[in-house]
Amino acid sequence: MIKVGIVGGTGYTGVELMRLLAVHADVKLEVITSRSLDGTPVADVFPNLRGVIDLAFSAPSTDAYKNCDLVFFATPNAIAMTQAEEILESGIKLIDLAADFRIKDIPTWEQWYGTQHACPGLVEEAVYGLPEMNRDAIRSARLVANPGCYPTAVVLALLPLLANKLVDPKTIIADCKSGASGAGRNANTATLFCEVTESVNAYAVSGHRHLPEIRQVLQLVDANADLVFTPHLMPIIRGIHATVYADATFYADATGPADKLQQVFEDYYSDEIFVDVMPAGSHPQTRSVKGSNHCRIAVHYLERSNKIVILSVIDNLVKGAAGQAIQNMNLMFGIDEQSALQAPGMLP
Amino acid sequence: MIKVGIVGGTGYTGVELMRLLAVHADVKLEVITSRSLDGTPVADVFPNLRGVIDLAFSAPSTDAYKNCDLVFFATPNAIAMTQAEEILESGIKLIDLAADFRIKDIPTWEQWYGTQHACPGLVEEAVYGLPEMNRDAIRSARLVANPGCYPTAVVLALLPLLANKLVDPKTIIADCKSGASGAGRNANTATLFCEVTESVNAYAVSGHRHLPEIRQVLQLVDANADLVFTPHLMPIIRGIHATVYADATFYADATGPADKLQQVFEDYYSDEIFVDVMPAGSHPQTRSVKGSNHCRIAVHYLERSNKIVILSVIDNLVKGAAGQAIQNMNLMFGIDEQSALQAPGMLP
Amino acid sequence: MIKVGIVGGTGYTGVELMRLLAVHADVKLEVITSRSLDGTPVADVFPNLRGVIDLAFSAPSTDAYKNCDLVFFATPNAIAMTQAEEILESGIKLIDLAADFRIKDIPTWEQWYGTQHACPGLVEEAVYGLPEMNRDAIRSARLVANPGCYPTAVVLALLPLLANKLVDPKTIIADCKSGASGAGRNANTATLFCEVTESVNAYAVSGHRHLPEIRQVLQLVDANADLVFTPHLMPIIRGIHATVYADATFYADATGPADKLQQVFEDYYSDEIFVDVMPAGSHPQTRSVKGSNHCRIAVHYLERSNKIVILSVIDNLVKGAAGQAIQNMNLMFGIDEQSALQAPGMLP
Amino acid sequence: MIKVGIVGGTGYTGVELMRLLAVHADVKLEVITSRSLDGTPVADVFPNLRGVIDLAFSAPSTDAYKNCDLVFFATPNAIAMTQAEEILESGIKLIDLAADFRIKDIPTWEQWYGTQHACPGLVEEAVYGLPEMNRDAIRSARLVANPGCYPTAVVLALLPLLANKLVDPKTIIADCKSGASGAGRNANTATLFCEVTESVNAYAVSGHRHLPEIRQVLQLVDANADLVFTPHLMPIIRGIHATVYADATFYADATGPADKLQQVFEDYYSDEIFVDVMPAGSHPQTRSVKGSNHCRIAVHYLERSNKIVILSVIDNLVKGAAGQAIQNMNLMFGIDEQSALQAPGMLP
Repeated sequence: MIKVGIVGGTGYTGVELMRLLAVHADVKLEVITSRSLDGTPVADVFPNLRGVIDLAFSAPSTDAYKNCDLVFFATPNAIAMTQAEEILESGIKLIDLAADFRIKDIPTWEQWYGTQHACPGLVEEAVYGLPEMNRDAIRSARLVANPGCYPTAVVLALLPLLANKLVDPKTIIADCKSGASGAGRNANTATLFCEVTESVNAYAVSGHRHLPEIRQVLQLVDANADLVFTPHLMPIIRGIHATVYADATFYADATGPADKLQQVFEDYYSDEIFVDVMPAGSHPQTRSVKGSNHCRIAVHYLERSNKIVILSVIDNLVKGAAGQAIQNMNLMFGIDEQSALQAPGMLP
Repeated sequence: MIKVGIVGGTGYTGVELMRLLAVHADVKLEVITSRSLDGTPVADVFPNLRGVIDLAFSAPSTDAYKNCDLVFFATPNAIAMTQAEEILESGIKLIDLAADFRIKDIPTWEQWYGTQHACPGLVEEAVYGLPEMNRDAIRSARLVANPGCYPTAVVLALLPLLANKLVDPKTIIADCKSGASGAGRNANTATLFCEVTESVNAYAVSGHRHLPEIRQVLQLVDANADLVFTPHLMPIIRGIHATVYADATFYADATGPADKLQQVFEDYYSDEIFVDVMPAGSHPQTRSVKGSNHCRIAVHYLERSNKIVILSVIDNLVKGAAGQAIQNMNLMFGIDEQSALQAPGMLP
Repeated sequence: MIKVGIVGGTGYTGVELMRLLAVHADVKLEVITSRSLDGTPVADVFPNLRGVIDLAFSAPSTDAYKNCDLVFFATPNAIAMTQAEEILESGIKLIDLAADFRIKDIPTWEQWYGTQHACPGLVEEAVYGLPEMNRDAIRSARLVANPGCYPTAVVLALLPLLANKLVDPKTIIADCKSGASGAGRNANTATLFCEVTESVNAYAVSGHRHLPEIRQVLQLVDANADLVFTPHLMPIIRGIHATVYADATFYADATGPADKLQQVFEDYYSDEIFVDVMPAGSHPQTRSVKGSNHCRIAVHYLERSNKIVILSVIDNLVKGAAGQAIQNMNLMFGIDEQSALQAPGMLP
Repeated sequence: MIKVGIVGGTGYTGVELMRLLAVHADVKLEVITSRSLDGTPVADVFPNLRGVIDLAFSAPSTDAYKNCDLVFFATPNAIAMTQAEEILESGIKLIDLAADFRIKDIPTWEQWYGTQHACPGLVEEAVYGLPEMNRDAIRSARLVANPGCYPTAVVLALLPLLANKLVDPKTIIADCKSGASGAGRNANTATLFCEVTESVNAYAVSGHRHLPEIRQVLQLVDANADLVFTPHLMPIIRGIHATVYADATFYADATGPADKLQQVFEDYYSDEIFVDVMPAGSHPQTRSVKGSNHCRIAVHYLERSNKIVILSVIDNLVKGAAGQAIQNMNLMFGIDEQSALQAPGMLP
């Protein structure tokens, strides 16, 4: 059994980790910490876990994780970096679901996250936990930076194209739509039911923290890659829909560009269990991945404009957070990558 | 392996059966029929099942189920009754998720369902598939009438009280709120998104088909039981919230009526894995059982009016339909009652 | 022109007052106060009012309302009572949309609102602003206590029955469903989008502040009246649906009880422009009154149980708050009671 | 009084026309036709109109509109074209809310709408009813083609840029999000509540009927204009959010490009009452225009990519359909352009 701790279990990624781990045959949840809820049974806060998780929240402390093989940080940004060194030195592996170890360039991180990095020394070691890019490195990692939700959806949409030089890497636009759970569980007027439902809006058009993360990952594949990234808030709980545009590097008079694109995607992801390339002409719905760890992708070619449009959907709390973290854990401990992640999406 | 067929797999109970059975270790799905979609892959209609269910719909026929040990009817009312005899005679067990075998009194059934019963001879044999009442009978049944969604929520709320003579059985009011998936997946203006969302209404106040079903079941426990039943449509996909009122037969000057009630419920359901009696003073949310087979119940005592108020929540597609059907199947085949039903509710 | 001030304009009743007053031909909005947003243009907070309301919030002060003929308090409970005397003494009329002047019995008020009443002397003078009960008194009032949202829906459902002695006044149950805007615009985890949507729950089953208010009003009509009141939270922005049950005092063998009930309601409300008695057998939807000042009511008679079931819907922000306040203002200033309240509900 | 008829009043644009016209001081609604609902009171279908619209639907016929000054066609596509000639010859003006007269090139129309045009002779005469482009022509028109919802949002976002040559007209991408009311009120599995809520998806990526309409309108301003257009379905009733991208023709080293853009938009729309250019840096929400005839626009400049991003929101049923049709009617009859359109958006 893998003994697991969760730091900061009161948010949506925390409860999602618990929901998924509850059916993981090889995991024993040892400890869940929360400073504010020390002593409160987890199931009092999250009644879906009644009868499933019997732990109470405990205060975070040096000792709290001592029996763990792995600790997930489901905390706000800039927390994991203050404790990572001590935990890793105790021989405990760490997956950070926040952003502390995602950006390799420290000044860039500090600019976007507005604070000094407390642990720059570990940033280089940290493996970016996107298994579809870094599976081998994740297997041997002790510190994994779990990707952001938008980056997961956007990068998976673009990898086959950039790897095959099928798009001009400077023409990428990622118009992304996210459910409200991405904004977290903190009390906030802007994410009240009456503020979010029956409305749609863009936000952070001038720059969102996931932009430098996506750019960094894309540039590992093509050094010239860059993008415009526009996030939008949707009145749904779960789901990211990335609509990604890029100029094709071939032209419509070439033979069967649409068929070729379809084949490129199917080939690229033929061994990936959690990436589902849908049939040509498809329009994936976010609900098809609600609660599941899958990314569903469809690729379209627009002859008139010579543009490629990729539609990519994930559940931001699963493949965009807790599910991908468990996928990474499975890899780090050499067990079946799908463990606890087999359940299909919940539709309707 | 239990070899299973599903008749009428294109509705919400059909897809929910498939979602849940997909992770059932002891079940092999043999056949899914649909007259209108013969030949269409299931996953083309329900993309959440891509990579999980590889079958295509096939036309219903005498032969279709010949390899099955059990057939689920996820059809509209009045279909299973036309095929049940033939199926049972082939030695195949049958669970009907519709209403054909729920009502023991044939004239009552015919009055409420507006047609002649095609198979009255099997009605007496059919076991009403509420395991919390009829577990032993279900174990040996070959024909199970899976309960309606409202009846499941209401009956579980009342069983401990009626069995212990704690309420006046003639004073029951069940004010019930249901998600829209209960109305099915047929094209219908009244259940369009723009008609249902941002609105709430009662319906069938003068009489709903689930009323005689609830009455029949309650009268098995107390022959004098009767009730007023008011269903309401809520803008949620899944969930039933039953708010049940009844006059207490004891009075407030008795010692600790509220504590006693709490204890009665906890004792009554102490061995029931799928009924969760919440702490005194609780208000269960339907989302705490979203996707799960649990019924969560809280009991309140109002001293001033000497009324008992029971709050009972289920997922209408799971404990109110497909999940309970699988629970019944598990019992009929002598396997763990929880098989395929362990996953906690999806929150948020 | 009636010169109007609004105290506490940052909540949902505040913005709804402004939305409705913006098209009131006889009203000039003079001042809107908010301590926290002093100096911020109203339209920066509520962009629907851009180009319509040019005022900025100003700090509350003795002088702020000096040019007003009337001040609306759209504040939390226990604010208006601290300023009412001074305002009234300046010759300014006052409508309190909170609960400070609704309950005539001071100890009852203090028990339910958990604080000492700052201004008990004005409570007796205050007129309960339900025009369908108190139209004449409202016309000459200088202080109006605007009713709560639940009380408005429930009382309008019961007035014709109690006035005509058609129900046993001790058997009333009001099972009420409310949209989330009733919970206000303050940051609160419990009313986040992801906590409210796709879920339904009861709350305050053991006692809600609107219970003594409803009881007091009903007892003005029948001194023996009492009720069980259960509020529920629904995932809609606007709307209250009251499902009210009571035992009929006549019996089913009487001639045409259902027809008689229908007639009683139609007669009782024949002169009321904002109460719409729907045809027999109707099931009003909350969306039919979305944004409008109407209450739609349907009455059903259940012969078997000799129960009457009344369905009553309002928009909690309009007839349940801001609209009714404007209706009261119209009466107090002798102008057309419908001014600014003519727009039909927004459907879909 | 302008005497008005509505053809096909059973859909969402029909009921929205009635909601808005109900408070129009200068309009008398004479007739509302529906073949299927002949004789049914309008208020039975749309209960929000009880007490407001006393008409019943009547069968469409040659005589039905004989007393009208103007007829609105709120019908499906390809209906108005079969009756327009006869109506216009009777001296009755006509506004078609469907697409029959929007596309000037008949073969293009026939290709996208899949049928032969019944009345090509009137297409040239028809005025495209976007007042911000064609106000004078609308004033003297007898036949107005009311714009599509997406085209309204996208064109208003681009007019100032194309008119001022500030974008490369071949680089336009319009990523648009629409509420479900745009799909109409016909029974359809794909737009059921349980299919639409809690999900987001793109549709018609390879080509949508509004694409040639947008292209035609943009090319009137810049003959080289073309675009990629991707519609998405959102789980909201009302609202379109257009996120429009285009390459700037100037560069970041120019002086204050962002300020200049803001000024260009403010100047361009300075006299337009229904176009609201929001402050620099804004992110308009669709709910800010819910029920109102406004289009709210914000413009952003991204220096790194030299892209302009315009955010444009409308209510698809108001400025995108019925409201704009009334605005056109007001112009055609020389009355205040804002008549019946003054109400602010309903927020929350």
